[in-house]
Amino acid sequence: MRILVVSGPNLNLLGKREPATYGTTTLWDIEDHLKKKFPDVKLEFFQSNSEGALIDQLHKAIDGAFDGIVLNPGAYGHYSYALRDAVAALKTPVVEVHVSNIYAREEFRKHSVIAPVCKGVITGFGGASYELAVRFLVENKS
Amino acid sequence: MRILVVSGPNLNLLGKREPATYGTTTLWDIEDHLKKKFPDVKLEFFQSNSEGALIDQLHKAIDGAFDGIVLNPGAYGHYSYALRDAVAALKTPVVEVHVSNIYAREEFRKHSVIAPVCKGVITGFGGASYELAVRFLVENKS
Amino acid sequence: MRILVVSGPNLNLLGKREPATYGTTTLWDIEDHLKKKFPDVKLEFFQSNSEGALIDQLHKAIDGAFDGIVLNPGAYGHYSYALRDAVAALKTPVVEVHVSNIYAREEFRKHSVIAPVCKGVITGFGGASYELAVRFLVENKS
Amino acid sequence: MRILVVSGPNLNLLGKREPATYGTTTLWDIEDHLKKKFPDVKLEFFQSNSEGALIDQLHKAIDGAFDGIVLNPGAYGHYSYALRDAVAALKTPVVEVHVSNIYAREEFRKHSVIAPVCKGVITGFGGASYELAVRFLVENKS
Amino acid sequence: MRILVVSGPNLNLLGKREPATYGTTTLWDIEDHLKKKFPDVKLEFFQSNSEGALIDQLHKAIDGAFDGIVLNPGAYGHYSYALRDAVAALKTPVVEVHVSNIYAREEFRKHSVIAPVCKGVITGFGGASYELAVRFLVENKS
Amino acid sequence: MRILVVSGPNLNLLGKREPATYGTTTLWDIEDHLKKKFPDVKLEFFQSNSEGALIDQLHKAIDGAFDGIVLNPGAYGHYSYALRDAVAALKTPVVEVHVSNIYAREEFRKHSVIAPVCKGVITGFGGASYELAVRFLVENKS
Amino acid sequence: MRILVVSGPNLNLLGKREPATYGTTTLWDIEDHLKKKFPDVKLEFFQSNSEGALIDQLHKAIDGAFDGIVLNPGAYGHYSYALRDAVAALKTPVVEVHVSNIYAREEFRKHSVIAPVCKGVITGFGGASYELAVRFLVENKS
Amino acid sequence: MRILVVSGPNLNLLGKREPATYGTTTLWDIEDHLKKKFPDVKLEFFQSNSEGALIDQLHKAIDGAFDGIVLNPGAYGHYSYALRDAVAALKTPVVEVHVSNIYAREEFRKHSVIAPVCKGVITGFGGASYELAVRFLVENKS
Amino acid sequence: MRILVVSGPNLNLLGKREPATYGTTTLWDIEDHLKKKFPDVKLEFFQSNSEGALIDQLHKAIDGAFDGIVLNPGAYGHYSYALRDAVAALKTPVVEVHVSNIYAREEFRKHSVIAPVCKGVITGFGGASYELAVRFLVENKS
Amino acid sequence: MRILVVSGPNLNLLGKREPATYGTTTLWDIEDHLKKKFPDVKLEFFQSNSEGALIDQLHKAIDGAFDGIVLNPGAYGHYSYALRDAVAALKTPVVEVHVSNIYAREEFRKHSVIAPVCKGVITGFGGASYELAVRFLVENKS
Amino acid sequence: MRILVVSGPNLNLLGKREPATYGTTTLWDIEDHLKKKFPDVKLEFFQSNSEGALIDQLHKAIDGAFDGIVLNPGAYGHYSYALRDAVAALKTPVVEVHVSNIYAREEFRKHSVIAPVCKGVITGFGGASYELAVRFLVENKS
Amino acid sequence: MRILVVSGPNLNLLGKREPATYGTTTLWDIEDHLKKKFPDVKLEFFQSNSEGALIDQLHKAIDGAFDGIVLNPGAYGHYSYALRDAVAALKTPVVEVHVSNIYAREEFRKHSVIAPVCKGVITGFGGASYELAVRFLVENKS
Repeated sequence: MRILVVSGPNLNLLGKREPATYGTTTLWDIEDHLKKKFPDVKLEFFQSNSEGALIDQLHKAIDGAFDGIVLNPGAYGHYSYALRDAVAALKTPVVEVHVSNIYAREEFRKHSVIAPVCKGVITGFGGASYELAVRFLVENKS
Repeated sequence: MRILVVSGPNLNLLGKREPATYGTTTLWDIEDHLKKKFPDVKLEFFQSNSEGALIDQLHKAIDGAFDGIVLNPGAYGHYSYALRDAVAALKTPVVEVHVSNIYAREEFRKHSVIAPVCKGVITGFGGASYELAVRFLVENKS
Repeated sequence: MRILVVSGPNLNLLGKREPATYGTTTLWDIEDHLKKKFPDVKLEFFQSNSEGALIDQLHKAIDGAFDGIVLNPGAYGHYSYALRDAVAALKTPVVEVHVSNIYAREEFRKHSVIAPVCKGVITGFGGASYELAVRFLVENKS
Repeated sequence: MRILVVSGPNLNLLGKREPATYGTTTLWDIEDHLKKKFPDVKLEFFQSNSEGALIDQLHKAIDGAFDGIVLNPGAYGHYSYALRDAVAALKTPVVEVHVSNIYAREEFRKHSVIAPVCKGVITGFGGASYELAVRFLVENKS
Repeated sequence: MRILVVSGPNLNLLGKREPATYGTTTLWDIEDHLKKKFPDVKLEFFQSNSEGALIDQLHKAIDGAFDGIVLNPGAYGHYSYALRDAVAALKTPVVEVHVSNIYAREEFRKHSVIAPVCKGVITGFGGASYELAVRFLVENKS
Repeated sequence: MRILVVSGPNLNLLGKREPATYGTTTLWDIEDHLKKKFPDVKLEFFQSNSEGALIDQLHKAIDGAFDGIVLNPGAYGHYSYALRDAVAALKTPVVEVHVSNIYAREEFRKHSVIAPVCKGVITGFGGASYELAVRFLVENKS
Repeated sequence: MRILVVSGPNLNLLGKREPATYGTTTLWDIEDHLKKKFPDVKLEFFQSNSEGALIDQLHKAIDGAFDGIVLNPGAYGHYSYALRDAVAALKTPVVEVHVSNIYAREEFRKHSVIAPVCKGVITGFGGASYELAVRFLVENKS
Repeated sequence: MRILVVSGPNLNLLGKREPATYGTTTLWDIEDHLKKKFPDVKLEFFQSNSEGALIDQLHKAIDGAFDGIVLNPGAYGHYSYALRDAVAALKTPVVEVHVSNIYAREEFRKHSVIAPVCKGVITGFGGASYELAVRFLVENKS
Repeated sequence: MRILVVSGPNLNLLGKREPATYGTTTLWDIEDHLKKKFPDVKLEFFQSNSEGALIDQLHKAIDGAFDGIVLNPGAYGHYSYALRDAVAALKTPVVEVHVSNIYAREEFRKHSVIAPVCKGVITGFGGASYELAVRFLVENKS
Repeated sequence: MRILVVSGPNLNLLGKREPATYGTTTLWDIEDHLKKKFPDVKLEFFQSNSEGALIDQLHKAIDGAFDGIVLNPGAYGHYSYALRDAVAALKTPVVEVHVSNIYAREEFRKHSVIAPVCKGVITGFGGASYELAVRFLVENKS
Repeated sequence: MRILVVSGPNLNLLGKREPATYGTTTLWDIEDHLKKKFPDVKLEFFQSNSEGALIDQLHKAIDGAFDGIVLNPGAYGHYSYALRDAVAALKTPVVEVHVSNIYAREEFRKHSVIAPVCKGVITGFGGASYELAVRFLVENKS
Repeated sequence: MRILVVSGPNLNLLGKREPATYGTTTLWDIEDHLKKKFPDVKLEFFQSNSEGALIDQLHKAIDGAFDGIVLNPGAYGHYSYALRDAVAALKTPVVEVHVSNIYAREEFRKHSVIAPVCKGVITGFGGASYELAVRFLVENKS
């Protein structure tokens, strides 16, 4: 099983950035943890601060290269209709995740333009948001 | 470990009600599945169509009777500030779950008044939304 | 033919409450009138001030126990998405009725969250709103 | 008893136009049906696609020429304050009707600027909306 | 000097219609009064309930046939962008008038889509609104 | 003199719940305090988390059983039009009270749908909000 | 006959201030013109940039000292509910005037909080707005 | 091939009206140009300032009398849901055109209630908007 | 104990102004009543129609000159952020009062920009609003 | 004549992506078609998913390198004010095109922030939207 | 060079008022600092809590008495269209300053009605906001 | 002292682009001017049209590589929550600058999503906006 894990803007700073909100775990810690938890899954990781690069990466899944995608759109989730269209173009199930509980923060974070075209959303569980998403994809492989 | 699983209005019809949206799994199927998946967890289940009864039930956790709560508020999630206040009154972590992807449906379903006072939200995975929530609570028991 | 007539909050006060707006006919007068007008119809009446009890009652129609439902949601019609979901769960046709012309009153009364999932709406005709609804159901039994 | 039945824009196409929404009954079928159902009532029918012509027609009732009016304003109901003013000018009771359930369709159809000055509203019952309206006027002649 | 006085929908009912709001003076009374007050002015009067007919009439002023226009758009003033465009097409000064104080009534009456392209607005003075408008045009003929 | 003191959802947790916002005084402390302060008044207390039960209780005052009512609607005050209708049905003066200053908190708490049909509102004084309300009713008994 | 003419903020700069919008006529020119036009009327003029001073001045009319008031509230007209309350307190008819056509300018100028409690509004005619207002008051003295 | 070209309110003034916005080409110039450009197409032209007349004209296409329709709704495009319903009733493809770039003008012009039921929209190219629309219909005749 | 009682615009007209809304008690009656009710409190009264004068007055409390302040901001309460800032600058507890029930009147009166920085709000009890506020300050002197 | 054809995010997937909405023609098919249709025009094509790259490309036209630009901004059209500013910086005429009828889809697609600074907009004609745009530029070369 | 420095409501409390937000520097400290920093500039200072007095002061610059104005409107900046009009009346460049970063505080502070008619805005730098504004005016004297 | 000066989309066109709005000074002129004015400061300049590249650049300051940052976000300032998050991640003070007075232009330019997480904002002073920002950082180095 092949799963693509895509992380958007500023997630390369995870662990360093506003730790009161985002915790001290880095994105690389999360990736290591996922590899250990799911040794039989071929996990591919991608992080970029560029909207275009994230779209390019999602397009690689257009022909079924992956069985599932975990997407943390970061702040792009609140306005990037271009990213939404990239997700909508895929047949592969996409799970949107967020590290913090976006509903408990600023008003603008409560709205995701990407969620309507995803399979589902997991938000607020720190690095465990990624893990729960991968687990769902693994256990519900169609 | 003791976990309370609370389900709100119309969830007693799960499996019978609008199956194109909600699937054919019943709430009792979900409960059975959870019991099998988490045999070491003391799971307590409660379902009611009454806002007041749901609040009364959540109040039972005020003194630490449970280590975690999974709450599917159903449609009350969109307007019940009373239910929100009941959740906010608790120190026990509460995970909001929804069976369907509420962001992919009517506009009014995109807004949860309860999410801001929960630990996190899991939505769109059918019965697996409950399972992921319990798993998080079990693996992140503080 | 079996028809369920459900009335929501404060309708037990009909005839006593704000007679300039609601008239002096009581809910029991309306029920008596309906029984006389439609002697061949098995009419079942239910009134409650509790959202949960109204939902419970509607659920009794889930398996086709009634051929039609007349629902006066009272003020719950303006915000109870839980009641809406209960109506949407039914295959039985539901007609929403109001005693007063809700469009001629406060702004908040102009919006019904239940109407979109009903067969139709009859509003403003006093007790006759109920009668017209029953008549439609009787004459258009599918 | 004299009742005026006024139908607005595009209702001349009823039966031909978007039958999935409006059914296959024509406006003339409805008129025939009403004449048969209410043989003792002097029914006068008028249809026009012109806002001004509809207003002119309603003005004919200003001096009590009719005992009641059934008005299907069609799409004018959503924005014609001019039509509203014409209704408000009358002492004759006016019942607003719609063939389809306007609350179950596009957002803009949920709002009627005419309803606040009518006696009541009947919507969603196909041709029967007209019949219920006439029945109310006949049985509640003041 | 030639002045065109145009009155929109339902103003033919002035004096008969909702006298508590609009008074008992008819449009013909106003016209007579204007003729007496301004004997040296060539006054032309036009009333119609049809948006199209009002636009057609205004177009007659496109080539300078009138020195000024008094326009009571009635309820069309609240939404007729078509009428607004007809006014904007003219070089002749247009004064918008209303018989009642539209700001003291329903919310929707507070907004005129025509006022921004008029010379000015006079509202609330009964028939005198027309007289003040004509006076301004007469005394400020450019 | 008979005064009914009604408290809504989560107020049974007063003193235990979010003490930084609501203080450590319990509802029972408040009731005791009121009884001591107003020994000559027949005070009746009622608390429920159920919207329907609160409405049922208010209905008991429909025939003048009480001279005044103190109502802390809790979070129902922000959306329960059903509760509002119950208050509007009464001739007995109702004073809305809140323990915390609802205007200094989340945006949704600034709006009460019940206040427009009450005699007045007292908010922000802790348990003293109840006392001031009772005092007003006692000293202004009509 | 005694008429009070009150002008609000920045009108002391009329003629000097943004002449493209307001023209080159000064407030004193207008006053002189009014005195000549209405020699039999006792005109009293007042201008202030202070909201409080304008309210104080209007209060002087509370006991019928004037037969009519012309009020140019300037920019206070868009937000001063305090000024509105002062107007509402009077039984004397108040005519709101504006020199420029406020509907043809910035969005915020289209809304007057004072107009709903005035007799009527005259806007857009330069200094003639004042003259038309005085004329109405003189010719319609009750 | 038969194509109907319908133009709405004030377009009879094209060339005369606000030439800075709409240019100096008249509607008759455009019609002549179209006839020359598409000599093999049976072009039928219709212009009216009346909403009702425009709807009546569109109804003539209900039975397939035309292969395509070019509709310049003028200002009716911003609010005429009646015109929208007339378009929606047709199976013939309708192309909405505007002479000016409606997105570069007042806010209210940015919204077309008709566009959602058209095949497509062409706006901003002066008389060429019509030509491009006809060309599309001719080259994509189904 | 020293308490400052500040009243804003138009309250000098209390008793004379719109008695159906505000009653016939004057501000001086209220002051006399307070002095009699609280003989041991040093009460200082201030009324002004000027926003600036009200702010100046509140500033006198910046160094603890008063133990409590009762503030009836009148209409300034709906928009004066300057007054709000003056209140926020104080450590002395401020109680906002209104004579009428502002929630039962025009929409704009339902919003107070000052309430969020006050201790609490008392509204709707006529002159007794002031008395309840003073009583709270006296009985809860910190 | 030189024309630049710029296509934004996800248009590289045209033909593969949601064919029910966008058809099965690829962007390369469209480019081939344009080259054949307009053999005398020097057409330059550019597609990118990156907002920055699209802006960089448009900047190449700042010094008149192209006679016209066809821009399909894709989803960036709904929010990219940066792209808008790039278009506004050019003197070269820019035509905005969309393959699907954006007005017939989700609400957010009805708003283009780029259209106000374009020459015009063509939307809904599939690949033919591009062709009509090029044709306009070719036939109206200034 | 002559520069007028105007400070609005509550700025006389600077240093004493909410020091966590506004710091401990007083307005007089700022004035002293400016005098030392710009010894060659004739600086005139004015502070008032009264909207009217601020407008009166700005009017003194109408005839070019100053080469530049620094205006800290305080809370009046959020709603005083009267103050805006006073600024717009001047030809002298006006720089709006704020001590705190108004964008990082309550929602209502993010909107300045005065900024659109100023030369520019400097906000968030404490007393240095004034200094930067003066520096700009000095170094860019036209 | 090290200061990073970051400029966003279309600022590479400064001087060429819409000179009526932005002037004729280029970004390179500004950089030269800053180097001359602040010879002792190590200034680093960066401009990009790519949101992702701007974020990448800001991330270089995460470990204190700069003592201050001047950020002209261009149009990204109106919607890029991703850029906002990058700024919020830094401890280094960031000053937002704009060349034009964004409050005096289109409505959408009045809103900055970045300002709330900056130290302060300087807007409207042309190239001098940059200079004032650098000066503040230099003189207030903490």
